[in-house]
Amino acid sequence: MKSDVEISQESRMDPIVKIAAKLGIKEDQLEQYGHYKAKVQFDPKVEKPAGKLILVTSINPTAAGEGKTTVTIGLGDGLSELHKKVALALREPSLGPVMGMKGGATGGGYAQVVPMDDINLHFTGDFDALTEAHNTLAALIDNHIQHGNQLNIDPRQITWKRVLDVNDRELRQVVVGLGGRTSGVPRQDGFDITVASELMAILCLATDLVDLKKRIGQMLIGYTYDRKPILVSDLHVQGALTLLLKDAIKPNLVQTIEHTPAFIHGGPFANIAHGCNSILATQAALHFADYAITEAGFGSDLGGEKFMDIVSPKLNKTPDCVVVVATARALKLNGGVNKNELNQENLAALADGVANLKRHVANMRQYGKPVVVAINRFSSDSEAEINFLTQYVTNELQVKSAVINSWAQGGKGAIELAKEVVAACEQPADFKPLYAAGTPLLDKIKAIVTKTYGGSDVVLSTKAQTALKQIEKMGYSQLPVCMAKTQYSLTDNAKQLGAPTNFIIHVSDLQLKLGAGFIVALTGKILTMPGLPSHPAALDMDIDENGRITGLF
Amino acid sequence: MKSDVEISQESRMDPIVKIAAKLGIKEDQLEQYGHYKAKVQFDPKVEKPAGKLILVTSINPTAAGEGKTTVTIGLGDGLSELHKKVALALREPSLGPVMGMKGGATGGGYAQVVPMDDINLHFTGDFDALTEAHNTLAALIDNHIQHGNQLNIDPRQITWKRVLDVNDRELRQVVVGLGGRTSGVPRQDGFDITVASELMAILCLATDLVDLKKRIGQMLIGYTYDRKPILVSDLHVQGALTLLLKDAIKPNLVQTIEHTPAFIHGGPFANIAHGCNSILATQAALHFADYAITEAGFGSDLGGEKFMDIVSPKLNKTPDCVVVVATARALKLNGGVNKNELNQENLAALADGVANLKRHVANMRQYGKPVVVAINRFSSDSEAEINFLTQYVTNELQVKSAVINSWAQGGKGAIELAKEVVAACEQPADFKPLYAAGTPLLDKIKAIVTKTYGGSDVVLSTKAQTALKQIEKMGYSQLPVCMAKTQYSLTDNAKQLGAPTNFIIHVSDLQLKLGAGFIVALTGKILTMPGLPSHPAALDMDIDENGRITGLF
Repeated sequence: MKSDVEISQESRMDPIVKIAAKLGIKEDQLEQYGHYKAKVQFDPKVEKPAGKLILVTSINPTAAGEGKTTVTIGLGDGLSELHKKVALALREPSLGPVMGMKGGATGGGYAQVVPMDDINLHFTGDFDALTEAHNTLAALIDNHIQHGNQLNIDPRQITWKRVLDVNDRELRQVVVGLGGRTSGVPRQDGFDITVASELMAILCLATDLVDLKKRIGQMLIGYTYDRKPILVSDLHVQGALTLLLKDAIKPNLVQTIEHTPAFIHGGPFANIAHGCNSILATQAALHFADYAITEAGFGSDLGGEKFMDIVSPKLNKTPDCVVVVATARALKLNGGVNKNELNQENLAALADGVANLKRHVANMRQYGKPVVVAINRFSSDSEAEINFLTQYVTNELQVKSAVINSWAQGGKGAIELAKEVVAACEQPADFKPLYAAGTPLLDKIKAIVTKTYGGSDVVLSTKAQTALKQIEKMGYSQLPVCMAKTQYSLTDNAKQLGAPTNFIIHVSDLQLKLGAGFIVALTGKILTMPGLPSHPAALDMDIDENGRITGLF
Repeated sequence: MKSDVEISQESRMDPIVKIAAKLGIKEDQLEQYGHYKAKVQFDPKVEKPAGKLILVTSINPTAAGEGKTTVTIGLGDGLSELHKKVALALREPSLGPVMGMKGGATGGGYAQVVPMDDINLHFTGDFDALTEAHNTLAALIDNHIQHGNQLNIDPRQITWKRVLDVNDRELRQVVVGLGGRTSGVPRQDGFDITVASELMAILCLATDLVDLKKRIGQMLIGYTYDRKPILVSDLHVQGALTLLLKDAIKPNLVQTIEHTPAFIHGGPFANIAHGCNSILATQAALHFADYAITEAGFGSDLGGEKFMDIVSPKLNKTPDCVVVVATARALKLNGGVNKNELNQENLAALADGVANLKRHVANMRQYGKPVVVAINRFSSDSEAEINFLTQYVTNELQVKSAVINSWAQGGKGAIELAKEVVAACEQPADFKPLYAAGTPLLDKIKAIVTKTYGGSDVVLSTKAQTALKQIEKMGYSQLPVCMAKTQYSLTDNAKQLGAPTNFIIHVSDLQLKLGAGFIVALTGKILTMPGLPSHPAALDMDIDENGRITGLF
């Protein structure tokens, strides 16, 4: 069996100018990065997006692998098979996890975006630019304090940490500014992974360069000794930081193995951030194609909910159809099967595990839009299992479904799903928001917990209670909330699979992200800087004298 | 008067494919990064370099500004005016200083490489890739310790620090690994600026991907509890790190305002590292053009010496001609004039200050190659000052000279210099190395101090003495030495201008760089992580809705 990187390297890519021409992108709108990648200049105010929007989400991810990205890419190729004009809008992979765990963000098998090695590594430099801009701001804050601290910033109350796109637990909590009078002011600090930076959220929510700069200026970076908030605009560096992101803001264009155009741009994680690709990439896909397919991170409880409640209002567009990805394997795991026994048929476990799928379908249906379940077939799935699942979705959940096998068959394996999605997009449907604009902060969190997670209540830590009071006092309670929660469970405990009820969500802290325009609610033991495993993927990677890559998935 | 960024933005660039065609670079060797930047695939083993090599160096830099890069670019355009086939080989600017001090590394006035904004910002992502690779290695080291420490690495003896391309004094000395059992091992650490990374030196000295990987594997990252050295190859991650640099190793092609081709690649500082662009870029320039012009960082005491003693042996080529840049203003400053009085004619101070030029010319002449002095004219220079300087170079130093004014006139202002350089390149000359291969480490340092700096002796700190013994014991004493010294003085004290004699150089530490293949000797108070000034350049930078940039020089 060929590895993903082998399939990727053997695929004959079209020159990116040819892919762009397919979408009617003019040559002067295109900046090539090598022969197979490009950045696209695009003004959504001038070029009004008009296509149908398809949102792909899934059940809770498990160790079994759900293949949400593979389904998303396969669906794109499936729509191409139906001769539809289609474009994908996906997130860029983060390099930190690429070096840690096997399993990329570029699909798998014959449903991949290519060149997968470049996309998984530095791509067009967007994350590097974000890292640089983020840390430049950190240096400018400490430099301000070093040179007299005119703004009276309290070094103990700086909320702007530093970032790297590396899984580096060693940097989670650090003390900086040691070394005496000329080497800064000693204080506690920490590093997050780049995708957790507010700048990443801003890049993905900004509608143009001016909006980007405005949002950067609004970012809260800390407080004065007398508890007054300090914004980036107080430091007068929003211009410089925007300058550092002048190319990063432009969506990137690549292709699938079957030459379907794919915009890949921005990549916040859905567990610690809002988990959706950039608004500009989705707008580009909506403008240049008739069908735009976007994937939100992790399950419907995370990326799905955030797409609906945070992204859609800024995008001025809600999905015409939502695809929920499920696999028999993952549902069996939810039904209590041991990871090592997933290859054996187990209908009883499947019948127990479907509760998880039921919850995720309900989560998306409550927004009023058509839902289609994509049953992503693995070679170990039995006919009986697939039949059971199809029947369950049709009879119990009463939504459409299709079996998809794009991993092995590419677009041809997704034709049935593509047909269901095209049909769903034609259904008239009104969008119903989860919470009304103006709902108080705590009530918004409660709405998400009870209506989406299936929980019963929310408990705030002492720290979170203080933060809530501060946010209300500052008058920002009306902002949407971005939940930071484990992706593995509908609860805040990664080990609770299935569809638990009557549980409580514990909010440990509330963080004001004024540039992104939301409030992050940290729940459970969520880490904003991952670590590497005992055998990092990096140990098996190599490149030979001819540039042939091994070990990258 | 127009600013550099205004002149840059108003210049009509040729498409980079046209610049490449000028040099006979084939389309399949070219990877475009937008319309005006490209990476060049080039195998020096197949395509033997054959051009003439011109090295540009200078007197000690001063606050007056010497314009070495401006002269280098102007000389390139001057040779183009003479209808010579010429290519520049320059270093990439570091973003850290760009955000700090005004004054870029892309020339000035009408002698600039363009697009200057892109080159000064992220360019093609080389430095970002180095930052990522460097910090990935750091994370892998700490991760190894966290997961059982099979190699028995002593956390107190890790020599591999972390890096950022940010001027951030706050990160010079830090404590990492706080936060308990799951967040690493507490230890002392620090950040350098990316250009000081050994990976930067390696990228600039590697001859191909295989050599790059070999060198990375050889890097020393620390010691075990029982003082045994730990190399990157012990961790088995040289493949992954090379993979992260697979694009960074390819030279970048841009152009001057007058469309002279310029390879810009790699950028170690000459005060804390070896200070020369990549060997691959110089080889590309030598191969594709008849005249290759390369610039070494800071004065002849730093980048000049390092080009001759570290780079040339690896390049298998010594310069055919050396250009030493001087200005009347800088020499007056060396002669004791106050910075505010540089606009006034002062022949007495100039007569005192030329001692500095004399030393730098002698430094380069001792290698046996022809030297030409480029007198870089500023508008405030008087005729009498320029005449005095020309006479002094001719009569006292007995080398050729030419006045150059490319800042105001571009290539036309450099025709005289270009003619002198062409003539010098035809002179037969044998290369005489500064020290013989096999000279013991301390004697190599003494040779540089006495023959190049004009000092009398070297004193090693206790730490440096211990390091020297360790290096000798390990059998690496034969490696070349890379001095880390202030650029402002021939001594290790930045305030001592002119051409001091009878001084002692204080070596505070010796660092083994087994991947780069040299030993760094730290002298005086040299910092490997700069800080930002009280009014950083970033505060004045901006970009408007049309992408128009202000404040970037």
